[in-house]
Amino acid sequence: MRVVFIGDIVGNLGRETVKRLLPWLREKYRPDIVIANGENAAGGRGINAAITRELFEWGVHGITMGNHTWDNREIFEFIDDEPRLVRPANLPPGTPGNGAMIVKVGSKELGVVNLIGRTFLPPTDDPFRAADELLTELRKQTKNILVDFHAEATSEKIAMGWYLDGRASLVVGTHTHVQTNDNRILPEGTAYVTDAGMTGPRDGVLGMEKESVIRRFTTGLPSRFTVAEGKWVLSGVFVEIDDATGKARSVQLIRVDEDSWIAV
Amino acid sequence: MRVVFIGDIVGNLGRETVKRLLPWLREKYRPDIVIANGENAAGGRGINAAITRELFEWGVHGITMGNHTWDNREIFEFIDDEPRLVRPANLPPGTPGNGAMIVKVGSKELGVVNLIGRTFLPPTDDPFRAADELLTELRKQTKNILVDFHAEATSEKIAMGWYLDGRASLVVGTHTHVQTNDNRILPEGTAYVTDAGMTGPRDGVLGMEKESVIRRFTTGLPSRFTVAEGKWVLSGVFVEIDDATGKARSVQLIRVDEDSWIAV
Amino acid sequence: MRVVFIGDIVGNLGRETVKRLLPWLREKYRPDIVIANGENAAGGRGINAAITRELFEWGVHGITMGNHTWDNREIFEFIDDEPRLVRPANLPPGTPGNGAMIVKVGSKELGVVNLIGRTFLPPTDDPFRAADELLTELRKQTKNILVDFHAEATSEKIAMGWYLDGRASLVVGTHTHVQTNDNRILPEGTAYVTDAGMTGPRDGVLGMEKESVIRRFTTGLPSRFTVAEGKWVLSGVFVEIDDATGKARSVQLIRVDEDSWIAV
Amino acid sequence: MRVVFIGDIVGNLGRETVKRLLPWLREKYRPDIVIANGENAAGGRGINAAITRELFEWGVHGITMGNHTWDNREIFEFIDDEPRLVRPANLPPGTPGNGAMIVKVGSKELGVVNLIGRTFLPPTDDPFRAADELLTELRKQTKNILVDFHAEATSEKIAMGWYLDGRASLVVGTHTHVQTNDNRILPEGTAYVTDAGMTGPRDGVLGMEKESVIRRFTTGLPSRFTVAEGKWVLSGVFVEIDDATGKARSVQLIRVDEDSWIAV
Ligand SMILES: [Fe+2]
Ligand SMILES: [Fe+2]
Ligand SMILES: [Fe+2]
Ligand SMILES: [Fe+2]
Ligand SMILES: [Fe+2]
Ligand SMILES: [Fe+2]
Ligand SMILES: [Fe+2]
Ligand SMILES: [Fe+2]
Repeated sequence: MRVVFIGDIVGNLGRETVKRLLPWLREKYRPDIVIANGENAAGGRGINAAITRELFEWGVHGITMGNHTWDNREIFEFIDDEPRLVRPANLPPGTPGNGAMIVKVGSKELGVVNLIGRTFLPPTDDPFRAADELLTELRKQTKNILVDFHAEATSEKIAMGWYLDGRASLVVGTHTHVQTNDNRILPEGTAYVTDAGMTGPRDGVLGMEKESVIRRFTTGLPSRFTVAEGKWVLSGVFVEIDDATGKARSVQLIRVDEDSWIAV
Repeated sequence: MRVVFIGDIVGNLGRETVKRLLPWLREKYRPDIVIANGENAAGGRGINAAITRELFEWGVHGITMGNHTWDNREIFEFIDDEPRLVRPANLPPGTPGNGAMIVKVGSKELGVVNLIGRTFLPPTDDPFRAADELLTELRKQTKNILVDFHAEATSEKIAMGWYLDGRASLVVGTHTHVQTNDNRILPEGTAYVTDAGMTGPRDGVLGMEKESVIRRFTTGLPSRFTVAEGKWVLSGVFVEIDDATGKARSVQLIRVDEDSWIAV
Repeated sequence: MRVVFIGDIVGNLGRETVKRLLPWLREKYRPDIVIANGENAAGGRGINAAITRELFEWGVHGITMGNHTWDNREIFEFIDDEPRLVRPANLPPGTPGNGAMIVKVGSKELGVVNLIGRTFLPPTDDPFRAADELLTELRKQTKNILVDFHAEATSEKIAMGWYLDGRASLVVGTHTHVQTNDNRILPEGTAYVTDAGMTGPRDGVLGMEKESVIRRFTTGLPSRFTVAEGKWVLSGVFVEIDDATGKARSVQLIRVDEDSWIAV
Repeated sequence: MRVVFIGDIVGNLGRETVKRLLPWLREKYRPDIVIANGENAAGGRGINAAITRELFEWGVHGITMGNHTWDNREIFEFIDDEPRLVRPANLPPGTPGNGAMIVKVGSKELGVVNLIGRTFLPPTDDPFRAADELLTELRKQTKNILVDFHAEATSEKIAMGWYLDGRASLVVGTHTHVQTNDNRILPEGTAYVTDAGMTGPRDGVLGMEKESVIRRFTTGLPSRFTVAEGKWVLSGVFVEIDDATGKARSVQLIRVDEDSWIAV
């Protein structure tokens, strides 16, 4: 199975970038399944129903979220009826939505788990224990499993990669919006990347307009952050999975921006 | 001017890796100057006089530090007499050591500044204001300036990159121990990389033995972290600077591990 | 000199409580000067010009602020023209407003300094160094000095108390909204209280409606916090200062609520 | 039932203070049961078997702990065999020791629960859910229940007080080492105090020698903290419980120091 994972889509420019590049991604990587992190898709903060539909229409098969899941309150209206979107699994019992799903495309089935870290992030349930439970459950149905671990600290993410080695096909980090250069296959067959990076404005700070972020850092005064404009970047990960074993055969970084991309 | 920057050297294996690969780095990149982050060089925690001497003997010309600067108390004995080592500049007045230096090798002069971030790290002085002051001062002597911004948050690091664009030749992050895939030259000529990555054990968590880190995350119980063993990785950045203007001509990631490296 | 300090005034109920009790406070404590923390006076978030005027009309002589200083954007319009209000002094140079003032009432002069802590709070300049500078400056004019140290951690607040012992007349903490039972006079004559407590709704959580706060803690979901209703509490500190030396003669806690108060 | 709770015992001076004052506490408050927080009893960091025995010999009937539970590694040797000591209940399954116990003295039975907060403290399981489960369980045996909520943030502690109102007899906070002046009985009968305060050196910073703490705050350099010397303070809470209903009849602060105490 061939899977493309697209890192945090930020705002309108991020969505336009996904729309523009999906044909190229399909041609280049021939993915069976495309998963994208959509926690910043609506103006940088959350997602809504219309955007969710759009992403599916363009060819995304499943959406993962993160700490910005609830920023756009519209999500409470549709999350329980949308089986193709997951929010972090390690939120308290009773939280709307699901933390894991099986994405089916043709004859292919991919388990998708979303987890959120706790280091430098608000308190929540243990992502390691949540992973134990969910992977045990999912693996009854399929060994092909993608885990989006939405976390800040490299230590927590790498620890999760090792912890799940042999139990997931791909453990990919999101949240920092900066792609890491550490794609590898761990000894037991799990592909690992600390962070997929973001998809959206290339020349901001994590996709937001840079002047306002710098002002916040230098003055400490409140500063309204808006999604940056200008050139785009698309970041993600491509993984080839052996369907029979769920082990990764290869894992590559995808990173292309407005200047480096040559349309097919 | 050609400069190689080596990311956080971790423990004995990190030092051995630097020793082994410096001839190869010199052959491949022909650097005029080599700078390395040494905050984890002594057993993962700090640095000492003997290790400092060794690194210089092997061909490192300047050392930068970070939050682990004082972990090995021996540093208090020599830091004020060692002009080739800098600790973060934005520590309170009266702190031992210096935060900036000029490294001279032959006819080449490189200003080197070490700064530390404040997001997800202990309180300290403003790194942006410290950068303003130090760069103004250094640029009276040379326009070729490397800034090692030792910080956790990608937002703070990228903001610093943009903030110093046109004033430094290279702004390179350290501390997360994971190399980022975002090397670029900003519009005003500053080369930028969010994190150089680490040099040392490849198969641990940030260079530390992975079982103990996983145990800490899953049990919350105290866990003694020791430097991992096994295969090595060397991570860093290579930058070409136009000596006359201080602007970067190119910036590349260096990442080689025991399996990918082919000795010259 | 007799000084009453009123802890964080929260919302409309907090303001009404100040209005209602000021005559009683004046009768009971006969203060020469009344200082109040107003960072939560406008709906729990910041302050505005009309509220500032009201507080002065009712008999408050000076206002201190905290981390909520900028929550109500109206403050940017008047802070530079209002000599009777201070925001934390240890904010970056160029920040609107002032961090210290001399409050004059009749023949009495009281230096008032506002500082903010850095432990568990956003990065900012060093409050200890800021205190050194400001107290040196203020003490040229008066030895009667009140320091409102707006901070979270008891360690940082107590350390500040000891650090300023002999240089301030009163070091009083704010921000936690819970009054501490540790009023004392330190050996060199500085009165100290870790936190003055809050003035406003008694039966909420820090003055906010308790259901929404509990919901945030138990679900992690976004929860709009509004100022609680119901019974009021007024919290503060009364200090007697020897005008000639600036040393405290006595320091008492003030805490009265709707059920315990007997109107004069 | 009459219960005395003694706040965090710090070091040798804290233990000596408990030994010296227990006869006086027994005379003054005539408690049926005495509970004490012992997380700092051994040199400020953790507890050991000998100290545990001593406290029981002097008349403490049950010990609660906190974030320093594991600082003294000796605890791993005896915690599973000591039914009169609890560590925070909301630690992961498999953690040594227990989080709740029934303390029996004569015909009196008191349920004792230890919980730890998550705001400004390391990640762990949800203390609110843990409280739900434990109180449901304990209340099958007794309605007389003391909860020591070891936490930093006043918001989290007050929220817990309201959350457990009517289900516990006393919710008392520990950890900040500063006693709060907010003892009250909530509407459904739960006595509440945000923090009991500490027992040990009066003139340090949270019981530690103040010069080293100030040095850490002002220099950022590593500073070894040792338990302070000099005069002592004892802090705690006295609560009267209606045995039949488990509701509190009264709750008082106990705070006495070397200068204010008059031996009986
Ligand atoms: Fe994101
Ligand atoms: Fe995120
Ligand atoms: Fe570091
Ligand atoms: Fe490091
Ligand atoms: Fe406040
Ligand atoms: Fe505040
Ligand atoms: Fe504690
Ligand atoms: Fe403690």
